[in-house]
Amino acid sequence: MRKFAAEKSRDILAHRKISSSVLHHPTASLSSSSHPQKPLSRSSAALLLRFLSTTASPNPSTDSMASDYSSTPVKIDTINPKVLECEYAVRGEIVTLAQILYCNIGNPQSLGQQPITFFREVLALCDHPAILDKSETQGLFSADSIERAFQILDQIPGRATGAYSHSQGIKGLRDAICAGIEARDGFPADPNDIFLTDGASPAVHMMMQLLIRSKDDGILCPIPQYPLYSASIALHGGTLVPYYLDEATGWGLEISELKKQLESVKSKGISVRALVVINPGNPTGQVLAENNQQQIVDFCRKEGLVLLADEVYQENIYVPDKQFHSFKKVARSMGYGEKDISLVSFQSVSKGYYGECGKRGGYMEVTGFSPDIREQIYKVSSVNLCSNISGQILASLVMNPPKVGDESYESYFAEKDAILSSLARRAKSLEEAFNGLEGVTCNRAEGAMYLFPRIHLPKKAIEAAKAVNSAPDAFYARRLLNATGIVVVPGSGFGQVAGTWHIRCTILPQEDRIPAIISRLTEFHKGFMDEFLD
Amino acid sequence: MRKFAAEKSRDILAHRKISSSVLHHPTASLSSSSHPQKPLSRSSAALLLRFLSTTASPNPSTDSMASDYSSTPVKIDTINPKVLECEYAVRGEIVTLAQILYCNIGNPQSLGQQPITFFREVLALCDHPAILDKSETQGLFSADSIERAFQILDQIPGRATGAYSHSQGIKGLRDAICAGIEARDGFPADPNDIFLTDGASPAVHMMMQLLIRSKDDGILCPIPQYPLYSASIALHGGTLVPYYLDEATGWGLEISELKKQLESVKSKGISVRALVVINPGNPTGQVLAENNQQQIVDFCRKEGLVLLADEVYQENIYVPDKQFHSFKKVARSMGYGEKDISLVSFQSVSKGYYGECGKRGGYMEVTGFSPDIREQIYKVSSVNLCSNISGQILASLVMNPPKVGDESYESYFAEKDAILSSLARRAKSLEEAFNGLEGVTCNRAEGAMYLFPRIHLPKKAIEAAKAVNSAPDAFYARRLLNATGIVVVPGSGFGQVAGTWHIRCTILPQEDRIPAIISRLTEFHKGFMDEFLD
Repeated sequence: MRKFAAEKSRDILAHRKISSSVLHHPTASLSSSSHPQKPLSRSSAALLLRFLSTTASPNPSTDSMASDYSSTPVKIDTINPKVLECEYAVRGEIVTLAQILYCNIGNPQSLGQQPITFFREVLALCDHPAILDKSETQGLFSADSIERAFQILDQIPGRATGAYSHSQGIKGLRDAICAGIEARDGFPADPNDIFLTDGASPAVHMMMQLLIRSKDDGILCPIPQYPLYSASIALHGGTLVPYYLDEATGWGLEISELKKQLESVKSKGISVRALVVINPGNPTGQVLAENNQQQIVDFCRKEGLVLLADEVYQENIYVPDKQFHSFKKVARSMGYGEKDISLVSFQSVSKGYYGECGKRGGYMEVTGFSPDIREQIYKVSSVNLCSNISGQILASLVMNPPKVGDESYESYFAEKDAILSSLARRAKSLEEAFNGLEGVTCNRAEGAMYLFPRIHLPKKAIEAAKAVNSAPDAFYARRLLNATGIVVVPGSGFGQVAGTWHIRCTILPQEDRIPAIISRLTEFHKGFMDEFLD
Repeated sequence: MRKFAAEKSRDILAHRKISSSVLHHPTASLSSSSHPQKPLSRSSAALLLRFLSTTASPNPSTDSMASDYSSTPVKIDTINPKVLECEYAVRGEIVTLAQILYCNIGNPQSLGQQPITFFREVLALCDHPAILDKSETQGLFSADSIERAFQILDQIPGRATGAYSHSQGIKGLRDAICAGIEARDGFPADPNDIFLTDGASPAVHMMMQLLIRSKDDGILCPIPQYPLYSASIALHGGTLVPYYLDEATGWGLEISELKKQLESVKSKGISVRALVVINPGNPTGQVLAENNQQQIVDFCRKEGLVLLADEVYQENIYVPDKQFHSFKKVARSMGYGEKDISLVSFQSVSKGYYGECGKRGGYMEVTGFSPDIREQIYKVSSVNLCSNISGQILASLVMNPPKVGDESYESYFAEKDAILSSLARRAKSLEEAFNGLEGVTCNRAEGAMYLFPRIHLPKKAIEAAKAVNSAPDAFYARRLLNATGIVVVPGSGFGQVAGTWHIRCTILPQEDRIPAIISRLTEFHKGFMDEFLD
């Protein structure tokens, strides 16, 4: 650890870009007093100001450095312009300091959330099957994790977890996932419809690649949205067609808004191919009501749109009056079958109560496409051979976890319940805190991992932001970071109704840090309003 | 296993696509007699014929099935045409039968090659760090694997191997990789130049995405080539500019050929952005001589090309008169520094003596780009957050394995040496066998994992192929499969000089199977020539 800290200091001095998640110290002491932390030093604040922007610009380029590369052939104006256009705000890189509170990225385990023991037992055994038969192993691992590892390894010829698998993923694991989908929905799933991928993101890219032919192809996306979608559409040369979620009604999704946006771009010659729905929502955290989902399904059928359902937060529901219903379940319940609606559902091992972001596991369930198109999807997935086997195994564990009666069930359930109930408490505490701030309104987080409060910024603050060439929400976020060490992402990174300002704050810091976060935030905000209100 | 076999039978009967690697039975008995295997049954052969084609077409689409999807919005002619255009021959899917000999894909562990014990020990410990402090662990794992796991975990805050890391990969692991690069080359490497990726393929895609703006952008690629390059160029809408390796001189790379192809496309308005060199070669197996590499470096500098160096087979060298030199070492040895040449080197954990294809680990080392372009590369890598942590760890182990004096060194070295010397023997045996066949010439495999023999097909055979609408090399390959169960990939999948026919055969089946493969092949070929020679 000492060497690590020394490297960090060197990097700070060298103005290098350092990942927030790498450098977080979960053990850094945090005063729980209501006194705000000492402001960051001027030079540190300057570095942070440079880095905290809505486009990810890690290394400030300087003219002199660029000109030294004059003999290399590629220039910034000769690379693919779609790469220049693409933006991904979530990973604006920030130099760490000991007291930073990372509320910017949905990365639970970087903030102390522990992995589910049973899952890690199985992964370790599959990584090193040679120990399965040893007696010491019985003493180190639960009996059912050993059994599950054997089961999984039996589905892989030669137990070769180091081999490329089928490009859609190991068949036995897809079967396990389908069993989980069926248990969840009450409707069957077909392993041939499952494509295991390195996280949900590559699956999203695959579908965008398939559907976007040119700038005349549009994809309807919610605003606010998780910027993977805008980035992917830009990278593939398409047009993002925004539909606005209604903040006044808990980020409601109105069909009339969908229709309006669709008609508007159609008249401009855009051919809309698909509708992205994120449920539960990111950054907005709403969980759709079932009848709302039915309207969406009907809308897609009527308008000939592929429904792209991002359901990665399906296990993060915090309110008793809402439930997760998969769009597949909804569509099948309405009587729509395989031939009636084109629907792609995305799931990931990064969220839920498992939070295994670094494992890069996930899948898409692809239904309602003709066989010849399915061949094309298969072909694209085969170019990268297959997704990583550990991620595949984890996806099968997430969708088919320990059951009542299994040896590990009680400890598994206790771990899961502790994490989810804690997330629900944190969501509530932070929501109440935001709503207690002057000029701030915050819808509740019904699900997912984020709050997206609206800051009604005083006119003076907006002018001050403009004076330093900054978006007002980024201005507020930088001041917040400077004064308190709390890192959030400005709403501009997700999109918002023009003239409104938001920040996205995760609910992920450990529960014992929440009081300090709330007190620092409250103190800062009061001071900010004192400064900028007339 | 019983359930698995039953499912396979069901799948075969249902004409489903099944991955060759999933269904391989390394324990399937193999007669070592010189009698050829009984030919496959007619229906099985028909299925195989359908599946063994140079475009990956897993599920035969039928008109009636397509028309049932008439109410779904996406049709085969409305998807992205670049997806239709892209081809990837290596994963033409094949129904398994008990006696198939998979010589088609570079997937060593699916054919019985064992992983390196030390690597798997470290991975398992990093997957489940909770066992590190237990006494049983001392009895199950080598002391230095425990130590290395601690070292790695110390480089990850909170030991959170489930968290997203820095988008370029965990800093400490990049440092370890740089130490390995420096030890290999004698020139330093910068961790900021390393981008850890899920295998080498995503890194290749990233560079193609960056460099290709339109069809007017060309990428020089060797013919024959590993079809990831052609697929990626097609997916990104660019133009593949072929340069032909010279079979007569051991697949030599002539600068005059590069110049000729470059001038030819320039005159057609194509702007050539980069040169792909695969060294050691796939499918051709040649290892470039150092002075040849120097010419290539000079060519790229002079012509303003980015040098994309696929070096994933760097640890697979089988002949005493050749050595691997990284292009970075060659360029630096010539006195060319960071500002003098744009060079991207790709490495992977899938090949070498480790063969960890399923782990999806790899990296690109990016040198010679200005900071503003580096920002863009970083930005694209951040959209997918990070590569899987286990793959990152494995890449650091591959580039920084046990050293003399480490507890595991001797067993590690014994495992490595056994695998590499066996590969060298298999390369030699199969090369000699191919050269012993009438009308077949086969360059030696100096490195990599493949042989690419040229089959001088008789006129009658070529006519018979045309009569069934097949490329002649695919015709030969299908007959070979039908008669012997040996699976190879037709040369058409890799590209070849027009009018020449090749097959790519891996050297990966276990050594004790090689005699049977050779005898079946020899018997088949004799029969084939008897049938088609005048």
